[in-house]
Amino acid sequence: MTTKRVKEILSWYSADSAGTKANLARMLSHGRLAGTGKMVILPVDQGFEHGPARSFAQNPAGYDPRYHFELAIDAGCNAYAAPLGFIEAGAAEFAGDIPLILKLNNSETLAKGGEPISALTGTVDDALRLGCAAIGFTIYPGSGEAKHAYHELRDLTEEAKRKGLAVVVWSYPRGSGLSKDGETAIDVVAYAAQIACQLGAHVIKVKPPTAHIEQAEAKKVYEKEKIPIATLAQRARHVVQACFAGRRILIFSGGVAKGKAEILEEIRGLADGGAFGSIMGRNSFQRPKTEAIELLHDVMDIYASA
Amino acid sequence: MTTKRVKEILSWYSADSAGTKANLARMLSHGRLAGTGKMVILPVDQGFEHGPARSFAQNPAGYDPRYHFELAIDAGCNAYAAPLGFIEAGAAEFAGDIPLILKLNNSETLAKGGEPISALTGTVDDALRLGCAAIGFTIYPGSGEAKHAYHELRDLTEEAKRKGLAVVVWSYPRGSGLSKDGETAIDVVAYAAQIACQLGAHVIKVKPPTAHIEQAEAKKVYEKEKIPIATLAQRARHVVQACFAGRRILIFSGGVAKGKAEILEEIRGLADGGAFGSIMGRNSFQRPKTEAIELLHDVMDIYASA
Amino acid sequence: MTTKRVKEILSWYSADSAGTKANLARMLSHGRLAGTGKMVILPVDQGFEHGPARSFAQNPAGYDPRYHFELAIDAGCNAYAAPLGFIEAGAAEFAGDIPLILKLNNSETLAKGGEPISALTGTVDDALRLGCAAIGFTIYPGSGEAKHAYHELRDLTEEAKRKGLAVVVWSYPRGSGLSKDGETAIDVVAYAAQIACQLGAHVIKVKPPTAHIEQAEAKKVYEKEKIPIATLAQRARHVVQACFAGRRILIFSGGVAKGKAEILEEIRGLADGGAFGSIMGRNSFQRPKTEAIELLHDVMDIYASA
Amino acid sequence: MTTKRVKEILSWYSADSAGTKANLARMLSHGRLAGTGKMVILPVDQGFEHGPARSFAQNPAGYDPRYHFELAIDAGCNAYAAPLGFIEAGAAEFAGDIPLILKLNNSETLAKGGEPISALTGTVDDALRLGCAAIGFTIYPGSGEAKHAYHELRDLTEEAKRKGLAVVVWSYPRGSGLSKDGETAIDVVAYAAQIACQLGAHVIKVKPPTAHIEQAEAKKVYEKEKIPIATLAQRARHVVQACFAGRRILIFSGGVAKGKAEILEEIRGLADGGAFGSIMGRNSFQRPKTEAIELLHDVMDIYASA
Amino acid sequence: MTTKRVKEILSWYSADSAGTKANLARMLSHGRLAGTGKMVILPVDQGFEHGPARSFAQNPAGYDPRYHFELAIDAGCNAYAAPLGFIEAGAAEFAGDIPLILKLNNSETLAKGGEPISALTGTVDDALRLGCAAIGFTIYPGSGEAKHAYHELRDLTEEAKRKGLAVVVWSYPRGSGLSKDGETAIDVVAYAAQIACQLGAHVIKVKPPTAHIEQAEAKKVYEKEKIPIATLAQRARHVVQACFAGRRILIFSGGVAKGKAEILEEIRGLADGGAFGSIMGRNSFQRPKTEAIELLHDVMDIYASA
Repeated sequence: MTTKRVKEILSWYSADSAGTKANLARMLSHGRLAGTGKMVILPVDQGFEHGPARSFAQNPAGYDPRYHFELAIDAGCNAYAAPLGFIEAGAAEFAGDIPLILKLNNSETLAKGGEPISALTGTVDDALRLGCAAIGFTIYPGSGEAKHAYHELRDLTEEAKRKGLAVVVWSYPRGSGLSKDGETAIDVVAYAAQIACQLGAHVIKVKPPTAHIEQAEAKKVYEKEKIPIATLAQRARHVVQACFAGRRILIFSGGVAKGKAEILEEIRGLADGGAFGSIMGRNSFQRPKTEAIELLHDVMDIYASA
Repeated sequence: MTTKRVKEILSWYSADSAGTKANLARMLSHGRLAGTGKMVILPVDQGFEHGPARSFAQNPAGYDPRYHFELAIDAGCNAYAAPLGFIEAGAAEFAGDIPLILKLNNSETLAKGGEPISALTGTVDDALRLGCAAIGFTIYPGSGEAKHAYHELRDLTEEAKRKGLAVVVWSYPRGSGLSKDGETAIDVVAYAAQIACQLGAHVIKVKPPTAHIEQAEAKKVYEKEKIPIATLAQRARHVVQACFAGRRILIFSGGVAKGKAEILEEIRGLADGGAFGSIMGRNSFQRPKTEAIELLHDVMDIYASA
Repeated sequence: MTTKRVKEILSWYSADSAGTKANLARMLSHGRLAGTGKMVILPVDQGFEHGPARSFAQNPAGYDPRYHFELAIDAGCNAYAAPLGFIEAGAAEFAGDIPLILKLNNSETLAKGGEPISALTGTVDDALRLGCAAIGFTIYPGSGEAKHAYHELRDLTEEAKRKGLAVVVWSYPRGSGLSKDGETAIDVVAYAAQIACQLGAHVIKVKPPTAHIEQAEAKKVYEKEKIPIATLAQRARHVVQACFAGRRILIFSGGVAKGKAEILEEIRGLADGGAFGSIMGRNSFQRPKTEAIELLHDVMDIYASA
Repeated sequence: MTTKRVKEILSWYSADSAGTKANLARMLSHGRLAGTGKMVILPVDQGFEHGPARSFAQNPAGYDPRYHFELAIDAGCNAYAAPLGFIEAGAAEFAGDIPLILKLNNSETLAKGGEPISALTGTVDDALRLGCAAIGFTIYPGSGEAKHAYHELRDLTEEAKRKGLAVVVWSYPRGSGLSKDGETAIDVVAYAAQIACQLGAHVIKVKPPTAHIEQAEAKKVYEKEKIPIATLAQRARHVVQACFAGRRILIFSGGVAKGKAEILEEIRGLADGGAFGSIMGRNSFQRPKTEAIELLHDVMDIYASA
Repeated sequence: MTTKRVKEILSWYSADSAGTKANLARMLSHGRLAGTGKMVILPVDQGFEHGPARSFAQNPAGYDPRYHFELAIDAGCNAYAAPLGFIEAGAAEFAGDIPLILKLNNSETLAKGGEPISALTGTVDDALRLGCAAIGFTIYPGSGEAKHAYHELRDLTEEAKRKGLAVVVWSYPRGSGLSKDGETAIDVVAYAAQIACQLGAHVIKVKPPTAHIEQAEAKKVYEKEKIPIATLAQRARHVVQACFAGRRILIFSGGVAKGKAEILEEIRGLADGGAFGSIMGRNSFQRPKTEAIELLHDVMDIYASA
């Protein structure tokens, strides 16, 4: 049964087709957080992005694509997101067991220097034939390739919506116009979230922002309007607001692997700020399975009680 | 009922289909200026172009996409223009309440330096499924990317006209061939308006021009023919003339936020010169709602009595 | 009735469809030169190429797109050529009154330096829906973009011929491989005409050539074979020969605005050399209408009696 | 009859269509290794990649494309892989005698320096009309062109799977971000294999890896996790693991021509590590036919008994 | 009647459709060499490649496109090859009189320096509507644009074969990786012929090779294997071998215009080496017609008696 809260969230997407709404509902109504309007997603694209040893050697069970399906199912995640190969390797075997998000672009780190460039590695029709609920796409606002990526996303988004899928956008600011600190600056993260919303994303994923303000023009406004950004909760709230006053599903990534206490403290801040959830890759699948499930449950509990 | 004046304006677009004419009529026959042949449009693309805080922190109601639909409806604007995300967030809820213009390209300001580059962020089919009356598109005549943008606009224009939509073109000269002052020079603005007309636009939006003349070849002609450009009204009249002797709908943008008196004086000049109306973004939605409506009404009154 | 001479000309295009032949016949059988096999065309693309004031301030009636339709009709031209906006602004009102040529690419002169780059500004389907007899396209042989333009022209030509339209090609040599004088050198103009013919053009327009020879390899041949190029008539005859031994319709442009006597002398030379006609823009529409018609009639008379 | 082992392997590709599974089965159930789950493939693309004399002068029978069909058939290979021209020259004559893999991209070595750039030289529809079981495609992870190649492969892979073909990917790391030794470093080869798997390849071909570790971030992990890479068997096992824990068919190339003892020793290492087979070009067709068949049989025997 | 030799040649193209085989047969069974398996083709693309005066002033009859049809027919050539404009100008008038080859790409020599860049100037559908037997395409192996050209050829080849046409490829090595002598070096010419074969060409045209060896890696093989390349006949034989052991139709170009004795001596060498024929442009159409026919007959006689 679709809960009242899920129905409320679906009402924000009133221009979407019944098919797309049903797929959003599938993700919101699955797993331990089903019906709460919160989401925890397991993403596993590190094999492509960082290579297999860096991703899976620590917990070698992860070399097997079935492991991640099982981890997401056993932990009660709302969805599992991965590139074509990993999704193909379990989509039939685990058909119906967990909503799937097919990541349609990915970058590798064998090429030298330069700006991040995501290559298209899957299609909307791949997502359909594999029974996915959504497509995933990464944009790098601020990079030299951003214009091209927006254009690609425009085409994929139109096709996905036409075919009844939902659209999840990873929005990671980068590029020569931004300092390293600027990539997670509060003004930049809020801007990146807004861009993803304006491009028509249903679910937006950004990194937890810092209190740094990168752009001079933005700094003036933050100061003049006294926008509170001292705590992580305040910053999360600001990014939620940037996502159409909270009328788009905003989730946060976990970033580099770290200690459990540190993770949960961060989650508490995000949850307090009104985040809809988290997407946790390395912090999940690089731990032994029982530890990973325990951590994911703790994270879900924080969101459930927020 | 379509007024005589609106019928006259429609007669200028005699090569267009009934569908496109009906959508032009929808915009001309809506709101406080309905039937007068004048137009005031609310555009809200600053979230994408400048980021959310710079756009909405001053009047935080604007973070919510529904606010702008309501503002445009309550103020009696002829139409509301925005990128995909903002239009999707209200198109169903406010269906039939206000003609919509889907902006199909947008640029962000996270990338460093360089010329302005608009990315495609929506499609003609998006405009159709969202019930829009028109598509919007920005060109930057004089920029290195202009050729590519004209080509994109050509394809979108043909598709839009074939599918019965109207075409609104923002024409903002820029690029290394122009000085900063040149971007609003009278010869350049008139040229930019002419280009948009020749590309098949139904409605053209340019910035209010200054008395500066940028191009040496043009200067000779302005001087020899003694084209009057001393007052804003004269300059507006010249740009109206550049738009097929007034047989295309030419409207002006408001530019950076400023004081009310200053705005109204500018509007008076434009209206005296025969402008068909204005498109006012930041000057509207960054003010408190009642103030914004008051200002928009004042602007409409000036056009109504011109 | 199609005259014997027009039937002869049509016989040169024996590989074309009946539809394309009919459209060639429409142009050859219209106006004061109807049936003579000669053509005088009114082209008005200067609004896009040079801006509105430089184009129309001298004779402000020309700001109105209807003026040019009327001028072409009243002067008895064979056809009127213009970009999308200008054609759309009169195609319905003047339907059937004059054959139309839709120029499918155009360049503007707001961008700094560089080689000339034509942007696509209309489609073959635009030409069909507007009732045009032909498409027009400009190539710049010798420029860095030429390869790309030939490819574009190939696609447009195939589509136009498939859909029963004729193809008019403006062939203007330019680019870093040519000196300024080289752009109108006899060898280069003849070469540019040949390229347009080989690309499948039905009507080719070039500039009147000078006696200068640009390419060293060509110079040897002109000298060895003693090709006569001293007079304009001889040079025109050479370019006519380069157009498949006169079996393609070759017309000349008028270039910059100048005095009437000078124009008529040039026309006499071209007509003596066997040119099929002229295409006269600025020299026509920048004069008062009666003067322009008088001039066009004089030009037509020269061709008629050649 | 499909053996139990082949059925097991097919079960790893559960998301694929019956058509694609049947073509994988065709390759696995053909030749001397039929039913064992092991594969030895004859590839002949050196004529394109190195030129005819360097490829065939040593054993001139190889100039004739029929020779390679016969060699692959007589030696009992699982499949024969070549570019369009070579496949066309025997596909009808040897129809049904050996599964064919049409290589869809190839590079030549006449151009100077630069990164390797594969040109598309065949289509999926070519593979269908020639009765092939699979398409082949080479990627160069780490090269500047990799993003573009992944995109090409995405499109070809989707089409091939839709049309019931299998996909074989040659994954050869190269590019300015890698040292010469890095191209065969264990971390890089494992990463390249993972990328091919994630891109949806059914069969992956890489070069035998060395014990060198190229990437600093990877080195830390190999040392921390004490991944055994001292022997070729250990390294092969690691790459097998990188291919979805052995659930994708991984085969190794033979590289430059060398002595038989040396080859067989290498094969033994690869087989001990769990490799599914080898793809042997120059070491096969540059030897006299009987010697080549003897060598291929020895190689097959090693895999059969592994 | 198709002769036994022609049937044998057709058997080499066993993977091709009946339509393509019929068009190969049309060329092999036409003219003075009909049925012998040898071919002499008249190509006239110099108007585009070198300009009209350099091409036709010496024998001005050649300005008329009909002249070349007549020359090819009267001399008994197997086929006539030219760009779109020249073919269109005679395809209907001479329908059925001579097999036609539509050259689909051409380059002009007005642009400065740089590598040769062929522009697409015709389509496969143009070839069909003009009743051609084959398409022609030029590649420049070794040039920076080669990858792009192979891709274009791949698409055109697939379409041509699907539509029952034959494919003739001009393969001219060039580019910064080759010395001027290298362009006709024996190793490079043999390599260029092999590339065209592997790309699926039915008929391959290269320049007569010299005894120079360009590539160091190739040189080692030519010396080790003692490949005989001292005489033109030996070199022609080597290139024939490089064309799939003689199972593809290889013809040679004549190059720059020269004396008759010199030409015939070269032809004798090529014929002795097993070449299938020649393609002679400037040496034919720049001579007076009777001389040209005499020369072509002499050339045909040499091939007929080889």
